[in-house]
Amino acid sequence: MYAPGDVRVEQRDKPTLLHPTDAVIKVSAACVCGSDLWPYRGIQPVDEPTPMGHEYVGIVEEVGSDVTTIRPGQFVVGSFMASDNTCEICQAGYQSRCIHVEPVGAGGAQAEYLRVPLADGTLVATPALPDEDLIPSLLAASDVLGTGWFGAVAAEAGPGKTVVVVGDGAVGLLAVLAAKQLGAERIIAMSRHADRQKLALEYGATDIVTERGDEGVAKIKEMTGGYGAHSVIEAVGTQESMMQAIRCTRPGGHVGYVGVAHEVQLPGLELFFAEVHLLGGPAPVRRFLPDLIDLILQRKINPGKVFDLELSLDDAAKGYTAMDERRAIKALLKP
Amino acid sequence: MYAPGDVRVEQRDKPTLLHPTDAVIKVSAACVCGSDLWPYRGIQPVDEPTPMGHEYVGIVEEVGSDVTTIRPGQFVVGSFMASDNTCEICQAGYQSRCIHVEPVGAGGAQAEYLRVPLADGTLVATPALPDEDLIPSLLAASDVLGTGWFGAVAAEAGPGKTVVVVGDGAVGLLAVLAAKQLGAERIIAMSRHADRQKLALEYGATDIVTERGDEGVAKIKEMTGGYGAHSVIEAVGTQESMMQAIRCTRPGGHVGYVGVAHEVQLPGLELFFAEVHLLGGPAPVRRFLPDLIDLILQRKINPGKVFDLELSLDDAAKGYTAMDERRAIKALLKP
Repeated sequence: MYAPGDVRVEQRDKPTLLHPTDAVIKVSAACVCGSDLWPYRGIQPVDEPTPMGHEYVGIVEEVGSDVTTIRPGQFVVGSFMASDNTCEICQAGYQSRCIHVEPVGAGGAQAEYLRVPLADGTLVATPALPDEDLIPSLLAASDVLGTGWFGAVAAEAGPGKTVVVVGDGAVGLLAVLAAKQLGAERIIAMSRHADRQKLALEYGATDIVTERGDEGVAKIKEMTGGYGAHSVIEAVGTQESMMQAIRCTRPGGHVGYVGVAHEVQLPGLELFFAEVHLLGGPAPVRRFLPDLIDLILQRKINPGKVFDLELSLDDAAKGYTAMDERRAIKALLKP
Repeated sequence: MYAPGDVRVEQRDKPTLLHPTDAVIKVSAACVCGSDLWPYRGIQPVDEPTPMGHEYVGIVEEVGSDVTTIRPGQFVVGSFMASDNTCEICQAGYQSRCIHVEPVGAGGAQAEYLRVPLADGTLVATPALPDEDLIPSLLAASDVLGTGWFGAVAAEAGPGKTVVVVGDGAVGLLAVLAAKQLGAERIIAMSRHADRQKLALEYGATDIVTERGDEGVAKIKEMTGGYGAHSVIEAVGTQESMMQAIRCTRPGGHVGYVGVAHEVQLPGLELFFAEVHLLGGPAPVRRFLPDLIDLILQRKINPGKVFDLELSLDDAAKGYTAMDERRAIKALLKP
């Protein structure tokens, strides 16, 4: 990305091992993230030409001398944040805030090859090369599925719970899928787009609410006997969506927020009297990867359906445009 | 309270039963709360002469026709918020946000008699009249102990955990006591006052940190191997104390905040990347009362030590002045 709206595909040097804990992978598929649209839209500055992409699956090309669990030829899925997976924070399940954390996307995953730091702690290999048709779902696991899943876990979605999902992008839709898998009794998707409503219902939503803001909150209260929902997943990251999520939650309930909170300020006194649990942040995808990969390989979930546009890597710019204009939920890029 | 700084003791009508779910109690002891100092200091407006006080223990005088679990002559401890204790919010343990919640203090607990709404759901009777020397501790249970306890529970203080307490008022000191009772391994009290440090150590603090703000955060990081604390209890309610609490907490750790958050704004992006659990609000004291009363009657805890000034109700104004000037941690008032 050279500047907002200016994405170019260029020939660059193949990445190499920089540290003995690195791996280099040949990317099988990558994609465009909702968070890639922040700089594309000029909301986040682009100071210099920047390699893009942090979601990936691929085949291991080579590994550093300290890598012990991953070997060349394996198909791997990795988190967008590299983690050692051994520090106290990782052991508690918060690998995205590992004490040695590094963004994997520094070199750009929207590419033919990618260097992955801390390969042992970041990558998970599949038992064998997966069927081609499972690649979109495995790719989804590297960020959007893992992020929606974290939102649902942070919101304590589960049996007997009424769950609300604020946001109908790929993460919101996969939060619906996660809530369903976690056993939620009722799943209310807040969405205004017919195509996304359809996928939400397919993923397990029991209700669709089209109202937003105060009207949306009133609707949720009405649907929950005046109490509010037990669990609310916020998957947008704006002031309006955060307040909508907090206000939809009953006292003692849980908000899991995974939209990157740009320019959000939470009013302390309202939050105090709301008395809801709040947990959010960059999803510790690595915590969930083994289970998610297993569910995908067993064909129990199909998160890959969020990719409604497939392009060759050369056409990456078209993927940004389509997502920016909301013509696509999420674009998959094939090198 | 007529105006900031202007507290008067006046003869008023004895409260009567207004609803069949009410009780009227003869107050054995009441006290001045840190939160009473907000209007006393003019930070919260005083629009008209207002009865004060919401912490109380006493003997039941009469009960309404719908009251079934409480009877005249019993010694009772109650929460500062009246709750039905049967709605879904109460059943989940958040009685201070009961769907029928009412402040008990509307009539003023700093008085000889007090009407308590929703008596069955709000009051807990002791098995027999307690020994006189236990009254301060039972009084503490009605708010400050219950609030400190909720802070510790919300922060998930427990075995193996390093707990930090921000704030050395009565609530902060009793949060130390609660963390100790909940089995915390290490309890760090952030305090600058020698008398309060002494009580914190007596209540179970293992370390005292006198630094505040960024220096305090750096000190906690240094004491916890760079990670931050597992559990942090915020018991002040200012922007500085909230940010200090959040920044002292390791990713994935828990902040329990019980200081009433006046003029606090939480920056969304910092909170997102902090990735800590947040839970706070008015403490659901009723959830904890049966256990706290039991611990007090068994003389396993002595929360009454936070009362370092005892006055007759006629001298209530002196209690406000002493607490405002930090000459007393907490003032007990005897009608």
